[in-house]
Amino acid sequence: MGGDFAPEQIVKGAVLAANNPERDFEILLCGPEAVVKDELKKNGYSGNAITVIDAPDIVAMDESPTQALKTKPKSGLVTCVALQKQGLAQASVSAGNSGAMMAACLMILGRAADVARPAIACAVPTAKRQAILLDCGANVDEKASVLVDFALCGSVYAEAVMGYENPTVGLINMGEEEKKGTEVLQETHQLLKKAPLNFIGNVEGRDFIKGHADVAVAPGYTGNVILKLMEGFYELTHEVFGEVKTEKANEFERLWDYRNHGGGLLLGLNGVGIITHGRADSIAINHSLFTACKFAKADVPAKIAKKLSAIKQNSEPA
Amino acid sequence: MGGDFAPEQIVKGAVLAANNPERDFEILLCGPEAVVKDELKKNGYSGNAITVIDAPDIVAMDESPTQALKTKPKSGLVTCVALQKQGLAQASVSAGNSGAMMAACLMILGRAADVARPAIACAVPTAKRQAILLDCGANVDEKASVLVDFALCGSVYAEAVMGYENPTVGLINMGEEEKKGTEVLQETHQLLKKAPLNFIGNVEGRDFIKGHADVAVAPGYTGNVILKLMEGFYELTHEVFGEVKTEKANEFERLWDYRNHGGGLLLGLNGVGIITHGRADSIAINHSLFTACKFAKADVPAKIAKKLSAIKQNSEPA
Repeated sequence: MGGDFAPEQIVKGAVLAANNPERDFEILLCGPEAVVKDELKKNGYSGNAITVIDAPDIVAMDESPTQALKTKPKSGLVTCVALQKQGLAQASVSAGNSGAMMAACLMILGRAADVARPAIACAVPTAKRQAILLDCGANVDEKASVLVDFALCGSVYAEAVMGYENPTVGLINMGEEEKKGTEVLQETHQLLKKAPLNFIGNVEGRDFIKGHADVAVAPGYTGNVILKLMEGFYELTHEVFGEVKTEKANEFERLWDYRNHGGGLLLGLNGVGIITHGRADSIAINHSLFTACKFAKADVPAKIAKKLSAIKQNSEPA
Repeated sequence: MGGDFAPEQIVKGAVLAANNPERDFEILLCGPEAVVKDELKKNGYSGNAITVIDAPDIVAMDESPTQALKTKPKSGLVTCVALQKQGLAQASVSAGNSGAMMAACLMILGRAADVARPAIACAVPTAKRQAILLDCGANVDEKASVLVDFALCGSVYAEAVMGYENPTVGLINMGEEEKKGTEVLQETHQLLKKAPLNFIGNVEGRDFIKGHADVAVAPGYTGNVILKLMEGFYELTHEVFGEVKTEKANEFERLWDYRNHGGGLLLGLNGVGIITHGRADSIAINHSLFTACKFAKADVPAKIAKKLSAIKQNSEPA
């Protein structure tokens, strides 16, 4: 029931995925049973790739996360994360209240060992190939060590799920020189130089768009602004150039339409969570389900935990 | 001699402006006399709208600003700002080392009364009309009161130069709610609500592109990232759609080509300074000269000083 277009678009997206011959997962739809079944009927779905799990509580988009978790234990998002904890699901996707989804994941799944604060990562287009941008808004006022954790999480995801070998990692900054940016960014730069990462240094906004970094790290505030700007740019160009049908234009449309990007990947948890755009439509939901499956199959949480604990052990005094 | 394409493009841009029948200013070109005169000859310019002022010292793009000011008193940028201080020029434009230009302006012109830290503002395109984005990178780790000064400076410029009546002011943030964003942004939001401005609240990246705010305020780090992203995005769309010649496409090209935007406006100084893009070509230089003239004619520095001192007097205890 989460997101601006629930339940219609959510159920329609699930049906899209269920009917896709490349699907290699099953779908548990968590929401008020009668409502969800009614939507499935409207979509003419009677296959067995979708199971409805009754979750009658409804969390509003602007509800306080902690309040929602306390008073609505039978919401779709809590139900779906709890199924993962019980081993009955391997990933959870929500288009709903993102604070509540993050809180549910944190409370029920917990953090991957040694991750101080989970991040929201997004696979975003660049002029070269998709890049992982994080944090896209789960955190504010991060310390340098937290930004370094983000870099490590993003790097593991880019390698495990996107198949990038030794992905390049850049720090989003206002100049290439080490001494540029806020105090926290300057400290982060020094820590990243020493981390077991393919750190390529600071990356400016222009070079980020050009695709200089496979993994781009920014504080949650700035990362969120970047993500939303990219959405805004896409919408604007779609409006201006949407009727252009050259090969280049079609490719641009495919890459930049944010519905195709899979949603916000929660990295640093003891499990797999995805927060889609609140305005996610059926196409976005369909993509998020496929992304969640890849994310789970690649066993990203275990890989992140392993990488981080190895680093932290090495850096402890003998 | 500043910028990546000096002296060729700088002189060519000055000649472009000099030959423009709408020009209502004269140009003092500050650089090594023989070199500049040689360039003028190459451009076939022999009119009297351009005067060459000998300034033999050359500041490198990566030179330390304080070092450059100390050791190179006869650089183009110092010479040109000093002319303004003496009342022989009304505005200074540089494509060179932006730190050195800012430092020269601060040292020679000084700050407008009551402005704690000058900002770099840019007139950027949106889906509606141009907006003033600031700070674009002159500062880092700003306090809330500094961000409020930025809002006031930007608002005065938008009104005085761009002719926007009662311009809307937004705070670039990661959500619309007051409690979103970093601690500093939350504090800034509260201060902006009380300021004599047309404050419309937080503006997310997407809504900024849509043109929700005439003046958009962000810390220098994030503002710089936004500006560079916009440049990168323009370059990408130009590559993909550059050959499209519909009316909408031509309009997009005109609005989004950052060479047309006039450069970085230094707001909060006791004078008029513009830092153009390091990669400014003749078209960009030409636009910056026209912008500098408007900026000076509108007497923005005096208006900013007046507005800020009135506010600070009112807020003092009786």
